[in-house]
Amino acid sequence: MKVHGKPMRSIWVEPDGWSVGIIDQTRLPHAFVTLRLTTLDEAAHAIRSMQVRGAPLIGAVAAYGVCLALRGDASDVALERACTHLQATRPTAVNLRWALDEMRQALRPLSPSERLTAAYLRAAALSDEDVAINRAIGEHGLGLIESVWARKGRQGRVNVLTHCNAGWLATVDWGTALAPLYLAHDKGIPLHVWVDETRPRNQGAGLTAWELGQHGVPHTVIADNVGGHLMQHGEVDLCIVGTDRTTARGDVANKIGTYLKALAAKDNGVPFYVALPSPTIDWTLEDGVRDIPIEQRDGRELTDISGRLPSGEVVTVRVTPEGSPVANYGFDVTPARLVTALVTERGVCEASTEGLLSLFPERRPVRGTGT
Amino acid sequence: MKVHGKPMRSIWVEPDGWSVGIIDQTRLPHAFVTLRLTTLDEAAHAIRSMQVRGAPLIGAVAAYGVCLALRGDASDVALERACTHLQATRPTAVNLRWALDEMRQALRPLSPSERLTAAYLRAAALSDEDVAINRAIGEHGLGLIESVWARKGRQGRVNVLTHCNAGWLATVDWGTALAPLYLAHDKGIPLHVWVDETRPRNQGAGLTAWELGQHGVPHTVIADNVGGHLMQHGEVDLCIVGTDRTTARGDVANKIGTYLKALAAKDNGVPFYVALPSPTIDWTLEDGVRDIPIEQRDGRELTDISGRLPSGEVVTVRVTPEGSPVANYGFDVTPARLVTALVTERGVCEASTEGLLSLFPERRPVRGTGT
Repeated sequence: MKVHGKPMRSIWVEPDGWSVGIIDQTRLPHAFVTLRLTTLDEAAHAIRSMQVRGAPLIGAVAAYGVCLALRGDASDVALERACTHLQATRPTAVNLRWALDEMRQALRPLSPSERLTAAYLRAAALSDEDVAINRAIGEHGLGLIESVWARKGRQGRVNVLTHCNAGWLATVDWGTALAPLYLAHDKGIPLHVWVDETRPRNQGAGLTAWELGQHGVPHTVIADNVGGHLMQHGEVDLCIVGTDRTTARGDVANKIGTYLKALAAKDNGVPFYVALPSPTIDWTLEDGVRDIPIEQRDGRELTDISGRLPSGEVVTVRVTPEGSPVANYGFDVTPARLVTALVTERGVCEASTEGLLSLFPERRPVRGTGT
Repeated sequence: MKVHGKPMRSIWVEPDGWSVGIIDQTRLPHAFVTLRLTTLDEAAHAIRSMQVRGAPLIGAVAAYGVCLALRGDASDVALERACTHLQATRPTAVNLRWALDEMRQALRPLSPSERLTAAYLRAAALSDEDVAINRAIGEHGLGLIESVWARKGRQGRVNVLTHCNAGWLATVDWGTALAPLYLAHDKGIPLHVWVDETRPRNQGAGLTAWELGQHGVPHTVIADNVGGHLMQHGEVDLCIVGTDRTTARGDVANKIGTYLKALAAKDNGVPFYVALPSPTIDWTLEDGVRDIPIEQRDGRELTDISGRLPSGEVVTVRVTPEGSPVANYGFDVTPARLVTALVTERGVCEASTEGLLSLFPERRPVRGTGT
């Protein structure tokens, strides 16, 4: 997508052919700063400190982190150590594990001398696969937006609400939830996006608003509290969000607060879509509320807010009283019953076991083989 | 309630016998600063700039604002001008209008020379009535908390979720939604309050957390996004919030985001109570979503956040990107179907026309409308 009018991705190999470029997303929206990663530790730090975030992008950074680790030592031990180290940075992220497994599988059979080149090729392929997946999600989701636009008699605008950042900054390019919106906008459908601020880390106000603004998509930032009111008054035509983890029956774990918007959508007859690349499906889980562990994060994310002073200086201020405890849950689970449909790279399906298996039949348990 | 261990109210007449003391609530929680109001303009400014907020407290400040206006000129014209001026500060606030009507009715029949003393007496009486109303709300709500405590076998603690600030800072004393909590806490019921941060003005993080902390009530500040997750996991025994305006059938307009919490409570079988002094009932309205106009406030409330630097200095920082539009709706409406019960100074009732009429059989219209 575009930054300052020019297309770019969220991760790239630098012209030196080996170091890895990223956007420091902790500096957005106040400053656009790129970083050059040169070591495993720098890659792990980028993930842990959320310089990069978003399930697909984390996977890509981890893959390149393995490349950087293998530059000095491409032994079995070094490969294993790199994967373990990177996996520990965000234990909840299911496709961080998936990306590392892919790297392991590709590299383990090779001799150490062959591994480095293979690692870069595999990491590049994983990145390109992510772009292709997101583009496909975008095409399938575009159909949903076109339907709304047709239903409105191609009058006015299509109002979309999104939560957190499931845009291109969260992936290698296009985004998941935002991919259909970029395609619709580029196609000339008049679109307007209600952007949930997304406390406590403000990924909506900071990242989604920034990337939509850079690409020229009309949008309005709102407090997380506002969506229900807008839906009551017909100001939202559809909701679309991403997900960090989807269970086999279609429950979705996404940024804390997603569940509340899904409830409001249900209460007001507004379609609620969840966009997801299939690597974020956890086929081993059924009941998301019961089975998905919810990461508790540092309370300072809630108490301390970063922003810029009139002088331009970026500072962090404390908003809560001294001595008031805080709790900071990272995600919540939206039960499948509140999800109108899942939008995957293979198409749109009902949020249910049957729906998912219709798109991913290879996951259907094989019955009766033992009898 | 207590501040620094000493009982105080949110508004008082200063020892000089005429000027009016308030707490500058825009400075909380970072600094405890009191202000002395000496003129009508200062009173109006205190309301408009939200140095005081909360429907009942606004009413009390407006009543004293009339007193201050009459000190120089107690004519009919001056009385009318003062009421008009004060009414314009927060057009949505139904009991601002009610308090001003009370003052008008008490003072109009009197000769100008009698008005000043009568005004102070009436303002003091209105303040004391608010305290009595809130105390009564507290007593009735206490019964609900005692029931939960008994149902839990008097084990653990009673977890309550509240949104915004309906505490003593929003009233003259006790608060509405928080009155039952103060009484329960003072009675020794182990209570823990989940305090919604309440973006965009952070009245939860800034005011509710502060006043609960000052009074010693255990609490935890959470992002507005978190309540649904907590309810899914059994961490909330009941919700209780205030309201700015209640319709005759029990729809409640309260701080933006209340509706989302009510939806989550319904979805998880958690009781959702709304505490209200009867002056906030608008008997002329039925359908709150359709009929209650929702105040849109300055977008800077959303984009600019105040907090303190490590140095202690309080500054305002901008969190959104330059050029991203924002929208800032002040309230939303929670339909009566999502409200388990209303807690009024006359008792607890179903959120319905029948329920309200059972407590208010006289079904009086808003006092002073002339109908």
